Amino acid sequence: MIKPLNIGMIGYGFMGRAHSNAYATVNHFFDLPMRPVLKAACARDAAKAKAFADNWGYESVETDWRKLVERKDIDAIDICTPNNLHKEIALACAANKKMILCEKPLAMNGIEGKAMIDAVEKAGVANMVWYNYRRVPAVTLAKQFIDEGKLGRIFHYRAKFLQDWTINPELPQGGQGLWRLDVDAAGSGVSGDLLAHCIDTAVWLNGDMASVSAMTETFVKERKHNLTGKVEKVGIDDACTFFGRFDNGSLANFESTRYARGHKALYTFEINGEHASIFWDLHDLHRLQYFDHRDESKTRGWRSIHVTDGDHPYMGNWWVPGLQIGYESSFVHQVADFIKGVAGGNLSMPTFREAQRTQLILDAVLESAKSQKWVDVAKA
Amino acid sequence: MIKPLNIGMIGYGFMGRAHSNAYATVNHFFDLPMRPVLKAACARDAAKAKAFADNWGYESVETDWRKLVERKDIDAIDICTPNNLHKEIALACAANKKMILCEKPLAMNGIEGKAMIDAVEKAGVANMVWYNYRRVPAVTLAKQFIDEGKLGRIFHYRAKFLQDWTINPELPQGGQGLWRLDVDAAGSGVSGDLLAHCIDTAVWLNGDMASVSAMTETFVKERKHNLTGKVEKVGIDDACTFFGRFDNGSLANFESTRYARGHKALYTFEINGEHASIFWDLHDLHRLQYFDHRDESKTRGWRSIHVTDGDHPYMGNWWVPGLQIGYESSFVHQVADFIKGVAGGNLSMPTFREAQRTQLILDAVLESAKSQKWVDVAKA
Amino acid sequence: MIKPLNIGMIGYGFMGRAHSNAYATVNHFFDLPMRPVLKAACARDAAKAKAFADNWGYESVETDWRKLVERKDIDAIDICTPNNLHKEIALACAANKKMILCEKPLAMNGIEGKAMIDAVEKAGVANMVWYNYRRVPAVTLAKQFIDEGKLGRIFHYRAKFLQDWTINPELPQGGQGLWRLDVDAAGSGVSGDLLAHCIDTAVWLNGDMASVSAMTETFVKERKHNLTGKVEKVGIDDACTFFGRFDNGSLANFESTRYARGHKALYTFEINGEHASIFWDLHDLHRLQYFDHRDESKTRGWRSIHVTDGDHPYMGNWWVPGLQIGYESSFVHQVADFIKGVAGGNLSMPTFREAQRTQLILDAVLESAKSQKWVDVAKA
Amino acid sequence: MIKPLNIGMIGYGFMGRAHSNAYATVNHFFDLPMRPVLKAACARDAAKAKAFADNWGYESVETDWRKLVERKDIDAIDICTPNNLHKEIALACAANKKMILCEKPLAMNGIEGKAMIDAVEKAGVANMVWYNYRRVPAVTLAKQFIDEGKLGRIFHYRAKFLQDWTINPELPQGGQGLWRLDVDAAGSGVSGDLLAHCIDTAVWLNGDMASVSAMTETFVKERKHNLTGKVEKVGIDDACTFFGRFDNGSLANFESTRYARGHKALYTFEINGEHASIFWDLHDLHRLQYFDHRDESKTRGWRSIHVTDGDHPYMGNWWVPGLQIGYESSFVHQVADFIKGVAGGNLSMPTFREAQRTQLILDAVLESAKSQKWVDVAKA
Repeated sequence: MIKPLNIGMIGYGFMGRAHSNAYATVNHFFDLPMRPVLKAACARDAAKAKAFADNWGYESVETDWRKLVERKDIDAIDICTPNNLHKEIALACAANKKMILCEKPLAMNGIEGKAMIDAVEKAGVANMVWYNYRRVPAVTLAKQFIDEGKLGRIFHYRAKFLQDWTINPELPQGGQGLWRLDVDAAGSGVSGDLLAHCIDTAVWLNGDMASVSAMTETFVKERKHNLTGKVEKVGIDDACTFFGRFDNGSLANFESTRYARGHKALYTFEINGEHASIFWDLHDLHRLQYFDHRDESKTRGWRSIHVTDGDHPYMGNWWVPGLQIGYESSFVHQVADFIKGVAGGNLSMPTFREAQRTQLILDAVLESAKSQKWVDVAKA
Repeated sequence: MIKPLNIGMIGYGFMGRAHSNAYATVNHFFDLPMRPVLKAACARDAAKAKAFADNWGYESVETDWRKLVERKDIDAIDICTPNNLHKEIALACAANKKMILCEKPLAMNGIEGKAMIDAVEKAGVANMVWYNYRRVPAVTLAKQFIDEGKLGRIFHYRAKFLQDWTINPELPQGGQGLWRLDVDAAGSGVSGDLLAHCIDTAVWLNGDMASVSAMTETFVKERKHNLTGKVEKVGIDDACTFFGRFDNGSLANFESTRYARGHKALYTFEINGEHASIFWDLHDLHRLQYFDHRDESKTRGWRSIHVTDGDHPYMGNWWVPGLQIGYESSFVHQVADFIKGVAGGNLSMPTFREAQRTQLILDAVLESAKSQKWVDVAKA
Repeated sequence: MIKPLNIGMIGYGFMGRAHSNAYATVNHFFDLPMRPVLKAACARDAAKAKAFADNWGYESVETDWRKLVERKDIDAIDICTPNNLHKEIALACAANKKMILCEKPLAMNGIEGKAMIDAVEKAGVANMVWYNYRRVPAVTLAKQFIDEGKLGRIFHYRAKFLQDWTINPELPQGGQGLWRLDVDAAGSGVSGDLLAHCIDTAVWLNGDMASVSAMTETFVKERKHNLTGKVEKVGIDDACTFFGRFDNGSLANFESTRYARGHKALYTFEINGEHASIFWDLHDLHRLQYFDHRDESKTRGWRSIHVTDGDHPYMGNWWVPGLQIGYESSFVHQVADFIKGVAGGNLSMPTFREAQRTQLILDAVLESAKSQKWVDVAKA
Repeated sequence: MIKPLNIGMIGYGFMGRAHSNAYATVNHFFDLPMRPVLKAACARDAAKAKAFADNWGYESVETDWRKLVERKDIDAIDICTPNNLHKEIALACAANKKMILCEKPLAMNGIEGKAMIDAVEKAGVANMVWYNYRRVPAVTLAKQFIDEGKLGRIFHYRAKFLQDWTINPELPQGGQGLWRLDVDAAGSGVSGDLLAHCIDTAVWLNGDMASVSAMTETFVKERKHNLTGKVEKVGIDDACTFFGRFDNGSLANFESTRYARGHKALYTFEINGEHASIFWDLHDLHRLQYFDHRDESKTRGWRSIHVTDGDHPYMGNWWVPGLQIGYESSFVHQVADFIKGVAGGNLSMPTFREAQRTQLILDAVLESAKSQKWVDVAKA
């Protein structure tokens, strides 16, 4: 028998949709012991909550997240709010013994993150952060290659996340759809929004970082604020570049910006090892580029692996070789793994504790950008 | 109020899954007046039908398609059987006033296709063939460019569909998963399976063909047959190449094979017009390559359009710019368009009548390959 | 001691420049027993001949090719005239015991080609045709892969040569720079100009063809003729597509046109073998794409080989890995090989006899396009 | 009348060959008032100097560069020695009123560079540094786009130069072919060798830098030294990453390494402007990637400009559209421009003074790597 996993969703925006699609789809493609049941959707605006619930088939609606968190018929809470609410909600979830699927980044900073870890670990509830790119099949395949030792000693890890959607200075900050530009809601700019993804993948693939040196910039200094109606100082970073050293001795070069004309969501990473290198690009997320120096000399070249074969991660559950899946599937995979974890009594990565590693690196990055000095990354 | 559209599905294989996913997903992303309801799944093997129904949420199971077709609670029948059953089922559907969503190709040949057209048009039922690639956003965008006159007079239309999954001579023919290699079930080999897609897109984008000259080959002459257990002659074409002329004077060059090592599902087309050219590739289906000679001379180049923006076809309903969707979404779009058609009293393309154009071209291609002469394409 | 190889050049156009550059450069990069000495340049227009000779350092000038061919101080004649003069000049060269380096195609047709072969073989003079693409390092590497058996049984050979420079109907035909549009000077259009290259590479890599079926088209039917000043019928083929069968059982699909907007000189070929496939593209001539099915399953992908390493053909003589050479180097390599052949008493491929294979295939292609029937290729 | 420009070459290695080829080739493709005459080649090893001179046609040989510099029949000296000799030779050239074509980087550091500038400017001799990538047609085209204002305000400049040839720890340092690994001869590692190129292009395209923060690493700490025969500490940087700010407010992210498996000479740069972005890659040096946000929304995409048309920089002098030139041509172009400058009484960029900008940035980078602090770039 497939058991229900009763979900309460807080938020109805982009991520609310991506997660809801994953809940609705996962059992069609993965053979699992539990099935998500969409029990309730929560938003302050009742009409919006209702519309969202109707669209996705949530059985009920709440306008106060505290009430949702206390409902007996809910097993797990999905936190899709702006970053500044993560901690408070997570603590309430833990207090009510709810599992938590929290949108990334875990928190506004490491201090909040620490409080959240303490709460969930004390409560003993399953907890996971939606760093979905780990479950893009090509990225998971990269992880397999590294774990198999294909790359050997790592020399370089390079990652970028480039966008171009905030170049227009007339774009306001704050409020729905634009809270990522409001430092009070987001905590930071591209660091927490984009570099967080790059860092999470990096610590997963290449381990922790020891120290960093960073530079940030805010190109547009003032924008109209949607919540006040006034032109206000922009508090977020529009661009953030940092380099540093991993614990394994390899060098880091990370960059993120929303001012790279021509790039919509160009998350790329490249890892250079002694024997082999790997490159991945979110704009063609079903491909992994791989160079193996151990190939016969004359035939060596970067291999463009079309990650759609049955023996590629997750792909045996989808279509046939040659047919790519989309961005949304990464969330489907994450739910599948979460359910397996819950059913098997294991936590599914990244847990709050693991996601905290990204938080601590981000703290060091932002401190370095401010102090203009190298900063050691705090140990979790 | 959203009305139900009660679906009866015949088949449970690859296409049964792709269509079921589309029915389950479409209303989450498209605002539509009807919602597919999965009433019944039908297959000869009761256990398989049951498992399929459970997985996708079909409410009931049938093992005799004739019974399904006669059920009063079904509005539309989805035909996902091997090609040799399309006609018989479609005629029964028409007799029972069911709408039909028929997997491609429409039929085994033009004669069957004609009978099917006559039946559905006489019955006045909605009818559509699952040539899903029309609804890949990049392909739909190509259609927009052509309709806007961006290309000007067309000189060349070039299409290929290359695979490599039947090179191993130990692969048997016939039976589940392998009926495409059995001429009795499939009617032909790569022609009906792969070139049919190329031709459907071509007639949609570039109009009808006047005449063709073709060559076919069967590289592996005998294979064990799963239904008889004996080694039997292979009746299908492993490869088919043809050239010809479109009604608009442009030249056609089409090729398909299952013996192109390294290509899993490489459906590509390129159109060369007086002013501009277009290229598309199923392996990176979210991109359209576009060259416009009217660009300033020094800046001319092939543009790699990442078809994920809000003003690209269908994409406003999905995520944000830069995030690609997968193969399965093309079916979602086709269901969305079908429902809009049904609700608005219009037929959704390609209807049986339009899909027949592909059938008649395929007939000419196969006749030419046999006679080794040019063959005029019959007019529908 | 390095001996002189005294060259007499007939022609001063594009190919005259490409060959002269090769003569001037070859000894700087290749250690050879002979050095080309530019003795005389010949053209009907004395001023143009003089300017050309001055630019490239030819020691003298002739305005009558017959006089050049008779000069005692010339060892080898380079024929860079329009196609309709190749035969007559070659026969005179043979009569005067001159070695011949003849621009491609060998002749206007197979009958002329036969006369040329007879003449040079009777005279016992070294003879070679400038099918330069064989000496592009990536193409030579493809030949090595095939000779080593990397591909296994060949199923498909696909080649295209696409250009777009004659789309404008105002472009005249005939005369200098435009003789390729004048059927009297060129013999044919894209067939002899572009497909000839594709066919030469193909017979080198994949052996002879048995039979072909072709289609040609002339999109612009009349153009002003530069030699008469009148609008005249265009006699050449603007586009030519053919398929056929090689002697080894593999299938051919060839196409050429000057009406493919966006492509300047897109000569591509792809070979699909049982074990591996190869793809090459003149627009990025220093790369070879290679797919090997024997790679470990999860890591398989098309390899983009940057053919610039020291163990790649010819590349040890140039720069360092990563630094590409240009189109012109293919001619340098051909001269190097020619000199090695002359010094070693061997003929350098393709000789007239080997180039005749292309001529006979072209004859069959053009006959098929006219008769609209399959045509067997004559055996050399 | 074309006048002679009498060249004396010091050095016979990779760069000696690249420059010699440029002198031998330039007048064949460019219509110039002067022609380089290869008067003398100089190297300490007489046999090597002789072999080099014979190969390239230098009329004479010297084994003492001081004698060469004093010869009356020499107009210009080409310095192709290791970096630690540049200054001394340049000062002697200036004292002898010789023009100087100096291999990059200009000097070991800014102090040496300053002395060299003073010397040549006082002597009034033409002086140029071989930053050849400025004359790659695609890079020159990028410069044109920027000068025309196509990009608008610049936000980001990103450059990398990645190689992989020193990963093997058995590779020795020092001596011919390997002096780049010897800090005494080279001054630094990848900074002066590779980043120097990236920086020169950057200051040309985007102006000066204000301040930088850098990190260097030496992965292999000890290597056998060819000059001493002993295992010695490695003094060069194997990898160098830095970020910083340009005077125009844009952000810099630069990286170089010889430990990036799979990359031979991957020099890339990307510039993100308000309206448009540009990307270039040395591995496909004849292409420029260009994205223009002002294109019609639905058709926007990165354009792959195949920089081979007649109206592209330098390309009208070579072949026809679609046919690429190689790495070596950049030197040909630089000689052509140098000659035009000399004939016209103008200095050809980059002069010593302009190349000094790169030297000062490198000084700041290396100081920052050492001090682990931000460093302001000294003004020239």
